[in-house]
Amino acid sequence: MGSFSLRGLSGLPEIEPGDDLARLLVQALSAQDSPVRLRDGHILVLAQKAVSKAEGAVVSLAAVTPGEQAERIAADWDLVGGQTRRDPRAIQVVLDQSAEIVRAQNGVLISRTHHGLVCANAGVDASNSPRDETVIVLPKDPDASARAIRGRLRELTGAAPGVLITDSFGRAWRHGQCDVAIGCAGVSPLDDWRGRTDANGRELAATWLAVADSIAAAADLARGKDSSEPAILVEGLERFVTEHDGPGAAALLRPLEEDLFR
Amino acid sequence: MGSFSLRGLSGLPEIEPGDDLARLLVQALSAQDSPVRLRDGHILVLAQKAVSKAEGAVVSLAAVTPGEQAERIAADWDLVGGQTRRDPRAIQVVLDQSAEIVRAQNGVLISRTHHGLVCANAGVDASNSPRDETVIVLPKDPDASARAIRGRLRELTGAAPGVLITDSFGRAWRHGQCDVAIGCAGVSPLDDWRGRTDANGRELAATWLAVADSIAAAADLARGKDSSEPAILVEGLERFVTEHDGPGAAALLRPLEEDLFR
Repeated sequence: MGSFSLRGLSGLPEIEPGDDLARLLVQALSAQDSPVRLRDGHILVLAQKAVSKAEGAVVSLAAVTPGEQAERIAADWDLVGGQTRRDPRAIQVVLDQSAEIVRAQNGVLISRTHHGLVCANAGVDASNSPRDETVIVLPKDPDASARAIRGRLRELTGAAPGVLITDSFGRAWRHGQCDVAIGCAGVSPLDDWRGRTDANGRELAATWLAVADSIAAAADLARGKDSSEPAILVEGLERFVTEHDGPGAAALLRPLEEDLFR
Repeated sequence: MGSFSLRGLSGLPEIEPGDDLARLLVQALSAQDSPVRLRDGHILVLAQKAVSKAEGAVVSLAAVTPGEQAERIAADWDLVGGQTRRDPRAIQVVLDQSAEIVRAQNGVLISRTHHGLVCANAGVDASNSPRDETVIVLPKDPDASARAIRGRLRELTGAAPGVLITDSFGRAWRHGQCDVAIGCAGVSPLDDWRGRTDANGRELAATWLAVADSIAAAADLARGKDSSEPAILVEGLERFVTEHDGPGAAALLRPLEEDLFR
């Protein structure tokens, strides 16, 4: 089926609220050791944190008054002795970002966000925050963010690459985290082979590839966590890039009524 | 952090029980359009089905007598009207491969295998089976399989690439499947950044990258599901390749006592 490659883009500055992320990406692409001219078949994978910062999705803890539930969870976590940050104000932000707490156990808070994402701490993140006493939350509508960045890239370059916005999620039964797509524009989020037949004419049992999540996971390998490489360029996966923005990463969310693990 | 690339290897024959998979891989590598000389820093990603077939991990349904539980599940599935194969003998094989049924609901059977893997149908697969009336089961010890293939590659070529054995798993809250590593030799399964600090000197909250699973997910994008490309070559991820075989994919399994989602 051929080959594809990924590379982290160096030289992006620390992102600030109001930054034109698409413009910064175009500048970074042309400043690489081997400069890149953006094409329709490219995919740009952007770390959620960079997008959130550009959108100002940052909460100052000084402005947060923790409620009773946040204080209680913070106290429980102290008992458990988890490594997670136990500031009740940060926990209040997590609760504010959550539609439902799925588990609060063993020092781990897993919630379903208002977007429908199931993840630890509702995706609220303290690390790499530009100032102390702030936390970064997920973009309000990551698919809309991806579409806006794609539209702006088209304005600036004439090319409409696929755009993914990714975050690191834990998994129910497995250690460690893999990046998944929380926002998506111009990339098929899923590739459905169910009902198609294999080389022997037999129906493929359950092959429904989560394309956008697999690209997200791949992209994370192209950067170092200690470096400031929030953007990865993927070349060679043209077959998953679509002219229209498509259904977005929302299509990857399993509906509540199909959820066996609440 | 640089770049990496992946390519599907063409020209592997249909794998048969007893095949020397490492030898077939070496032959395929040298028969590519641009022949590949295997190096220590390479990673070879192998689809579980190919490894299972080579090991003869194939069960003939004619030899299986379904028990009461298998008959009951098969009947329930008929009621639900799922698309999954409802042969009670196939379900018996799934039960035989399972240490525990985690969910049997909505036409989906999710179990914990004897290896500790939580997945649909205990990884039992009918598609691409060489004959009707057979199902393919997971290798008995996929980490041992990976080590054996790596050892044989070293014998044949002098090089010891990382070896991953992968299968497609569904996810609790997300549609579609991503490949994960069920066997691993010579690749760090996890990259632990917890406790290290970010660019601002702040502790990285929860960054514990599931390297082997991310590589597995990436590799799946380099093949078409309808093609016979069970092997993917990854170049450029030398930093995750280890001299020793290491802890294997077993290190990716979350222990039962930490499992919040049984």
